[in-house]
Amino acid sequence: MDTDDRTRRHNAAMEKQKTRVDAGIEAADTERGVLVLLTGNGKGKSSSAFGMVMRALGYGHRVGVIQFIKGVQLSGEELYLQQHCPHVDFHQMGTGFTWDTQDRSGDIAAAQATWALAEPMLADPAYDLVVLDELTYMLGYNYLDTTQVLEAIANRPPEQSVVVTGRGGGRELRELADTVSEVKDVRHAFASGIKARRGVDY
Amino acid sequence: MDTDDRTRRHNAAMEKQKTRVDAGIEAADTERGVLVLLTGNGKGKSSSAFGMVMRALGYGHRVGVIQFIKGVQLSGEELYLQQHCPHVDFHQMGTGFTWDTQDRSGDIAAAQATWALAEPMLADPAYDLVVLDELTYMLGYNYLDTTQVLEAIANRPPEQSVVVTGRGGGRELRELADTVSEVKDVRHAFASGIKARRGVDY
Repeated sequence: MDTDDRTRRHNAAMEKQKTRVDAGIEAADTERGVLVLLTGNGKGKSSSAFGMVMRALGYGHRVGVIQFIKGVQLSGEELYLQQHCPHVDFHQMGTGFTWDTQDRSGDIAAAQATWALAEPMLADPAYDLVVLDELTYMLGYNYLDTTQVLEAIANRPPEQSVVVTGRGGGRELRELADTVSEVKDVRHAFASGIKARRGVDY
Repeated sequence: MDTDDRTRRHNAAMEKQKTRVDAGIEAADTERGVLVLLTGNGKGKSSSAFGMVMRALGYGHRVGVIQFIKGVQLSGEELYLQQHCPHVDFHQMGTGFTWDTQDRSGDIAAAQATWALAEPMLADPAYDLVVLDELTYMLGYNYLDTTQVLEAIANRPPEQSVVVTGRGGGRELRELADTVSEVKDVRHAFASGIKARRGVDY
């Protein structure tokens, strides 16, 4: 195949792709907030949620972030939001990962106290984006009532978008979500003996 | 199973998980920058990279961001970085998606001009994190020379981390990466006729 052929084939392929993309844009005519579920066992779920926070802040949107089961150590995104984004409503459960606490009843109380901060955000049209980071574990361990959580998400203001992260999460959450991405762990540096790294892993 | 039984089983499971997690942390003793590849067809790859930017900025790290094949329209994360993070070195190819340009030779020139901005970052130990957003397409279309790109990444300063996003990317990039996450599109709001949304999709 000579260069001209290659260029012609490339242009034909691009033209076809453009037609398909344009048709998709034409067909999508509903405007409302969405529920995005970022699940799976790979790296990148919480960081993706924080990337969406940055995206929303770029438009001056109002953002709420609730983190369930975060460790005691502050992460980079938490430091950043606390130092540079005082207008982002940011709350952490802050009891450490559950496999450090060894205390089911204490975890349940902490989860419910944290949910009590999330629920009013999901009822407040002033929030454009609400991030419920690692919420799925609260549902999986039955620390929170799934029906109550899903109803609050489903009944949120129509313009509000919600991002939920964490492995699992259950069939009902998955069905409620408009967008579901499953982040698959193909390889992790950790498995090759590389230490978790500031600014990359936390 | 009564409540006490449940609590005992839960605590035993958590204890086992804690042992496993602690053993993993113990074994990981190499400290160096990592190459993270975020690939697959699902939503969340670029936003995950920008979440890592936020994470790195939380520690005051120096960050460079190079975006390949971004559209003409500014996205939220671009607006945010331009307005609030003048210390982040941020460059865009800015020729529009290739299926809009219909111009292979123009695209190649643009890709190479953009790569000329990325390459010095990959040689500069002052950068803690370099994001090469949507680089994979440049390799897949042969707009850039894969060997040249992979050598630049492989020979970067040992403390520097690099994040590459985009579908595909090829076997060699995948093998070079320390961490590979594949973001699988389980469902996308777009397919249900919901318009792409500011602060969520761009």
